[in-house]
Amino acid sequence: MADADPRITLDYNNCMADAAGDEHLLAESDFDGIADQAGEVAQLIADQRKAGALPYLDLPYKADQVKRIHEYVNENGDQFDDVVVLGIGGSALGTIAVHAACKGLTYNLLPRDARGGPRLFVVDNVDPAHVAAVLDLVDLRRALVVVISKSGETAETMAQFLICRDLLRAQLGADYVRHVVIITDRKEGPLRPVAKRELFEPFDVPDGVGGRFSVLSPVGLLPLAMVGVNIDRLLQGAAAMDQRCRETDFRRNPAFMSGAIQYLYYLKGKPLSVMMPYSQALRDVADWYRQLWAESLGKIRKENGREVFVGPTPIKALGVTDQHSQVQLYREGPNDKIFTLIAVKDFGRDVPIPPADNPKDSFGYLGGNTLRELMDAERRATTWALTKSRRPNVTVALPRVDEHTVGQLLYMLEVQTSFTGEMLRINPYDQPGVEDGKRATFALMGREGYECLRAEIESQQPDPKYVI
Amino acid sequence: MADADPRITLDYNNCMADAAGDEHLLAESDFDGIADQAGEVAQLIADQRKAGALPYLDLPYKADQVKRIHEYVNENGDQFDDVVVLGIGGSALGTIAVHAACKGLTYNLLPRDARGGPRLFVVDNVDPAHVAAVLDLVDLRRALVVVISKSGETAETMAQFLICRDLLRAQLGADYVRHVVIITDRKEGPLRPVAKRELFEPFDVPDGVGGRFSVLSPVGLLPLAMVGVNIDRLLQGAAAMDQRCRETDFRRNPAFMSGAIQYLYYLKGKPLSVMMPYSQALRDVADWYRQLWAESLGKIRKENGREVFVGPTPIKALGVTDQHSQVQLYREGPNDKIFTLIAVKDFGRDVPIPPADNPKDSFGYLGGNTLRELMDAERRATTWALTKSRRPNVTVALPRVDEHTVGQLLYMLEVQTSFTGEMLRINPYDQPGVEDGKRATFALMGREGYECLRAEIESQQPDPKYVI
Repeated sequence: MADADPRITLDYNNCMADAAGDEHLLAESDFDGIADQAGEVAQLIADQRKAGALPYLDLPYKADQVKRIHEYVNENGDQFDDVVVLGIGGSALGTIAVHAACKGLTYNLLPRDARGGPRLFVVDNVDPAHVAAVLDLVDLRRALVVVISKSGETAETMAQFLICRDLLRAQLGADYVRHVVIITDRKEGPLRPVAKRELFEPFDVPDGVGGRFSVLSPVGLLPLAMVGVNIDRLLQGAAAMDQRCRETDFRRNPAFMSGAIQYLYYLKGKPLSVMMPYSQALRDVADWYRQLWAESLGKIRKENGREVFVGPTPIKALGVTDQHSQVQLYREGPNDKIFTLIAVKDFGRDVPIPPADNPKDSFGYLGGNTLRELMDAERRATTWALTKSRRPNVTVALPRVDEHTVGQLLYMLEVQTSFTGEMLRINPYDQPGVEDGKRATFALMGREGYECLRAEIESQQPDPKYVI
Repeated sequence: MADADPRITLDYNNCMADAAGDEHLLAESDFDGIADQAGEVAQLIADQRKAGALPYLDLPYKADQVKRIHEYVNENGDQFDDVVVLGIGGSALGTIAVHAACKGLTYNLLPRDARGGPRLFVVDNVDPAHVAAVLDLVDLRRALVVVISKSGETAETMAQFLICRDLLRAQLGADYVRHVVIITDRKEGPLRPVAKRELFEPFDVPDGVGGRFSVLSPVGLLPLAMVGVNIDRLLQGAAAMDQRCRETDFRRNPAFMSGAIQYLYYLKGKPLSVMMPYSQALRDVADWYRQLWAESLGKIRKENGREVFVGPTPIKALGVTDQHSQVQLYREGPNDKIFTLIAVKDFGRDVPIPPADNPKDSFGYLGGNTLRELMDAERRATTWALTKSRRPNVTVALPRVDEHTVGQLLYMLEVQTSFTGEMLRINPYDQPGVEDGKRATFALMGREGYECLRAEIESQQPDPKYVI
């Protein structure tokens, strides 16, 4: 990689013991112990990719798709004041995370010329008060509505679509068509025929790419490009990480090594995986990761006819903010967590701290430093304090926060997820546990064919003696 | 309580078994088993209160304090376009939570007349890019800066104070004094003399009230009143809950009963406590609770000279959004969680879902319902699915989201925390585990007297062989 494209690094010093036997640290022998299995998983992932079974890995290289997105944005970008994304879960979290990382959390409050693109509203809930409040803010006559659902069956997204389409038609007449983009399965589901019938611009959720692995497909790229994120650099960063992730020796592959550490600590009685970025802009990357990790790895594993409930629980934290909220627990609570801190070297901006009026004021030591230095000191202090309490932690370091480094980070975490899932011997790509809830929602909303389930659910009335 | 003040309820049906012996459910005998201890804890809390050792419990009744806040806001409220809170942890999370609950998450994007008050920026991080971006947005000549630190030693807040004071002086000259409010300890710490010297308006963090229990003191009330939150109703809600929480039979006290359920499940191998509001506006209440729960209960307990690491880990989730992110894990991952869902009956607004063009479209069943109905169906579906997977869950129901119900909720959760802490036999009011990190930050920032610690920390250089 050229110097212009600095790479992110994984530092796992604070997990390593000099010798085996420490229950909270790892020794070389722990890695030796999983080397054969890790080698098999590395080979499996390479074979699956070759066979076309892991298309998410090839998303950084879809030049045609990216070209079409650029063409759409070039033709339409200037016409809209707002981009409204209707999507939930994997159709929302990647866009939110990358946008916040590259454009900051104050983006929507900036004047248009400072933003350089439309405002972005990702409506990933159906709370009526919140949806109504967002619709109050948006002039739909100057907005693009991006509807994202692979299946076209997502109740939340389809309800939002029906609402927005109705408003668009009322306000724009026939011209409403230009205000809707549909991103859905290439062939299946009810949204594809809707797009065809109404002549909405359609983009594909690529075959075989699940929602939580789809941020580098049109699902993320189209809205991100609309609001001025440099998607070429994002994909270049992902491609650069892909090169490093093709390494089959897991000790030299940052995604596999990170996954191996997570796997080993899961076996060692630390089922909680905390991601704590020391960067406000990366806050929502931890939220995206939360879905990736939970939905991929939280699975029932069948073992000799028995069901085993498997999966680490991801936890999102934020440095330095959560030092004043969670670190008490992290240091003195149960030693059941592995921490991934994210460090940033260059924040792009810095703020000097002026001296105190009276140098003898107890906070006088701050003067003459900068906020970057304070941020860095706090991160190092937390790392030191965690390690002192024997709480294992790794640090992923980003030279800076931009499209290239975020592309590297997301891709690394995706590959880490595949690796860890295979090590845990579960299927990281399905989500059978959410089907019952979807069916129950259909039933309670009166969908045809679900009458019996509805009756079953409604028969369960709470006993008032357990309500206070 | 009058009908005009509807009360929140706790429904724990989905924890209850008909008979004892189910590892994932509770039986009446479980409650019988802790009744003596719960009775003692109830008495202890009542005694402590009487002795003046739990002043947070009396915050709803400080009429003088509230009067002074109203006077300040009446005199100054109109002069400011923005309120900037400099505070972190307990000085920030309560304000964020109550403001979002009562004013919604789009508040800052609304025009002034729709907002009815200044914008609110709670700057609870020192990320230089983020702080600089917020300062870009705010015209300090039209802003009130509220500096909140009980000790006056909080590095993050004091750094922000030095930066903002410098900018205010440069832009306003002597008039800058009117733009700063200090909320700090009544007597101790360096901020009190600063306020005195520079004639800043001072408010007190009441004696004996820790940050995470301080939302109903000036820490929360002053900024909340400035941005139009009805703090009288907030306190009335808290007082109404206080009446219910004086009940010493824990089974009839919602805070104690909720704490008892959390305690029993902690003992039964479910150390993860998930709070999942089905309300976008209550999202940040879960974040406030995360500090309250983690920092209060994550403690080292000394037992026969041994150290036991105690404490449940709170997890913040959001309905319906996180159904598409976390519910897979919640149902098929390890059965190690107790869930608290928050239900809302009346969202204040509703959005009808129009019919599909083609009633045979597979999403046609949605038409004719409303978003409130969908939100409610999804919550019930999740509750049902969790219960079906034998994942215990309770539901706290709010008739609506407003100052009164939020006051009830916060107060209940505070009392629940005191109760659970005493049941766990730890001190819920201190936070010794964060001291090392603070000292390490002082050391790395060059504070006098910390030279040895700095040398110690800096001597620990990462071994490059564990960096990839």
